Amino acid sequence: MALIVHKYGGTSMGSTDRIAQVAKRVAKWTRAGHQIVVVPSAMSGETNRLLGLAKELAPARQTAEYLRELDMLASTGEQVSVGLLAIALQAEGVAAVSYAGWQVPIRTDNAYTKARIDSIDDRKVRADLNAGKVVIITGFQGIDGAGNITTLGRGGSDTSAVAVAAALKADECLIFTDVDGVYTTDPRVVPEARRLHTVSFEEMLEMASLGSKVLQIRSVEFAGKYKVPLRVLSSFTPWDIDIAEEAKSGTLITFEEDEKMEQAIVSGIAFNRDEAKISVLGVPDLPGIAFQILGAVADANIEVDVIIQNVSRDGKADFSFTVHHNDYARALDLLKDKVLPALGGQANVVGDPRICKVSIVGIGMRSHVGVASKMFRALSEEGINIQMITTSEIKTSVVIDEKYMELAVRTLHRAFDLEQPGA
Amino acid sequence: MALIVHKYGGTSMGSTDRIAQVAKRVAKWTRAGHQIVVVPSAMSGETNRLLGLAKELAPARQTAEYLRELDMLASTGEQVSVGLLAIALQAEGVAAVSYAGWQVPIRTDNAYTKARIDSIDDRKVRADLNAGKVVIITGFQGIDGAGNITTLGRGGSDTSAVAVAAALKADECLIFTDVDGVYTTDPRVVPEARRLHTVSFEEMLEMASLGSKVLQIRSVEFAGKYKVPLRVLSSFTPWDIDIAEEAKSGTLITFEEDEKMEQAIVSGIAFNRDEAKISVLGVPDLPGIAFQILGAVADANIEVDVIIQNVSRDGKADFSFTVHHNDYARALDLLKDKVLPALGGQANVVGDPRICKVSIVGIGMRSHVGVASKMFRALSEEGINIQMITTSEIKTSVVIDEKYMELAVRTLHRAFDLEQPGA
Repeated sequence: MALIVHKYGGTSMGSTDRIAQVAKRVAKWTRAGHQIVVVPSAMSGETNRLLGLAKELAPARQTAEYLRELDMLASTGEQVSVGLLAIALQAEGVAAVSYAGWQVPIRTDNAYTKARIDSIDDRKVRADLNAGKVVIITGFQGIDGAGNITTLGRGGSDTSAVAVAAALKADECLIFTDVDGVYTTDPRVVPEARRLHTVSFEEMLEMASLGSKVLQIRSVEFAGKYKVPLRVLSSFTPWDIDIAEEAKSGTLITFEEDEKMEQAIVSGIAFNRDEAKISVLGVPDLPGIAFQILGAVADANIEVDVIIQNVSRDGKADFSFTVHHNDYARALDLLKDKVLPALGGQANVVGDPRICKVSIVGIGMRSHVGVASKMFRALSEEGINIQMITTSEIKTSVVIDEKYMELAVRTLHRAFDLEQPGA
Repeated sequence: MALIVHKYGGTSMGSTDRIAQVAKRVAKWTRAGHQIVVVPSAMSGETNRLLGLAKELAPARQTAEYLRELDMLASTGEQVSVGLLAIALQAEGVAAVSYAGWQVPIRTDNAYTKARIDSIDDRKVRADLNAGKVVIITGFQGIDGAGNITTLGRGGSDTSAVAVAAALKADECLIFTDVDGVYTTDPRVVPEARRLHTVSFEEMLEMASLGSKVLQIRSVEFAGKYKVPLRVLSSFTPWDIDIAEEAKSGTLITFEEDEKMEQAIVSGIAFNRDEAKISVLGVPDLPGIAFQILGAVADANIEVDVIIQNVSRDGKADFSFTVHHNDYARALDLLKDKVLPALGGQANVVGDPRICKVSIVGIGMRSHVGVASKMFRALSEEGINIQMITTSEIKTSVVIDEKYMELAVRTLHRAFDLEQPGA
């Protein structure tokens, strides 16, 4: 008998038919003798519907008063889900009880719409589990110190599930979703992309942040911090597939390198075409310049991803960074209107919104030399020019012309033999 | 400056456009210097949509576990409403904060789907009012002693509003709805029906229970118990109508007879065609017979309205009662299968689903003789046969053939001069 947390995403909860399937799947796990906690998302489309109503009434603002009400509103989506799932489980003859985050309680700070979990009281849940009940807990939300409802931000249900698993010291946290695991890259770009049976926590972090949108990155951080074994698997298999088979399906995110079965140097190719590049050329190479440029950008609430500063030449340096497409025009204006004048008029700003970022990710890179140069060679053989390079211990990213993205991903997938099982 | 509770029904909250109108109306009252608490219902159709989802998953049952989940589900409708209304008020430049019932808290018993309010903690609300905020509280729901969400049953938002008004000792509770007050009878049946400027609490109780569905009856009981001045008025007037005019519009439900401005003997004609008649004929006229018959019916959770037992003849009595149409077939079966055999096979059961109940209601009946006979004469002059009669201090009801309902209501409305203002 194990204590297992199941998380079901919005698509898995997308209709009463789908919810009935989830109930049958959970019932199967219960009948196999396991204690099950379920953390469902809102029915797909519901959160957007609710926030859309708010937008019809007033433009979005950043006041705490406004954001508090958004959380009152948005948190109802998951409450509907837990009530419906409890009803469906009871109809299956399984004792089940649902809780909103505030009932557990899941305590958070008071940063409305992007709260962070402080603690989870496991007493109520554990008592119900010991009484033979399935416990269903709203994802995405909690309660702050003053008794207000908070939400964790988009994708927060993954984080809720992992946090609940950590609090209960669950044996495993299963993230049921509409994909059947983590792939070496996006199969829509590379049909030969292969599902990974295991992936390390660190690799998963790099892949999630680089655009493999299987898991919310905060949930992976949480899983890493509390060593919660995490498995991503499909909720679109028939609910009655053999439980032993299901328990081994999908992709397991591991925390111990020794356990890694696949000793590939590179585990996957991530990519992202949502970014634009901005360069400030010929800035004086003086202390504080990076802050002068990026401080202004950060003050305008613009998030920056890749940041590169070249070595200086003639006392001048070139400074480049990438921002989300949505912030591109605003960032350019800001630099031209505010930052350049402060730099004394010698520097120059250029931008390019048609870029993409392609990254190779692999824990094996730590102990293998020449991985980056193999990447650069493969790209150059295809005539793909590299505009920016940035590296970390387990990934190397390049910024290239957007039009080469698919070619680059396919090329790298082949160059690192990712289509070969166990390579 | 007064402390006023506004309650808005589902139609008034039916769309973001309507919610924006409610916000403007509340803002007008706030700017006139009043402290305002708003209790809105769920957006029209939302509660049915949610309960419909539950029905798609499982047949309704009466277990506490199931009903608890229905309340988790249904309570979200009002939570959406309060969040949206707070956002709309903030967009009007009015400070506003919303609370779910559990946050106030509104404490109830644990009778899920039909809970009763035990107490309301007014501290949080009062602090917000004193800080200049409009406080918006979910109707229809509260929290039980164990921290579970409960709902008060259909129309429970009226009760919530009155209970909040009682707890805050509000100066008045305004029930904004899609009708502009309480009428002498349904204007769809009698076009000459007239709005009452005032109606006594007792009359309102009789009219609400008899089918004039303007206010939930429990809210009227609550208002009577705590002497909360209650006004029913329209939310479909332009929001910017003069506040002094609005404050006098609709129908005021009074608690002091002396204040009654309209000294009519009969205030209104109520009617109900949702009932069916069942008669048990020739039962032995012995102690315990009524209990033997109605006890079985009550045990089957069937609600009974009119109950009549005639004087006995030859040691046999006839016993009749009415039930809701939905329970008619079940009640008949129950009597034939269970009760008749126990009565020794001498009695006989007959039923008629095609009946209606028509009532005259008026506090003036207390001090006027001959009111009932005037009713019977008016009906007989139209050739309407009376099947059952039941009376209380301030109403007289008759059960007649369903097909005569409109004719009876029109006839009585005219017979008691209800189309005449101040008659």
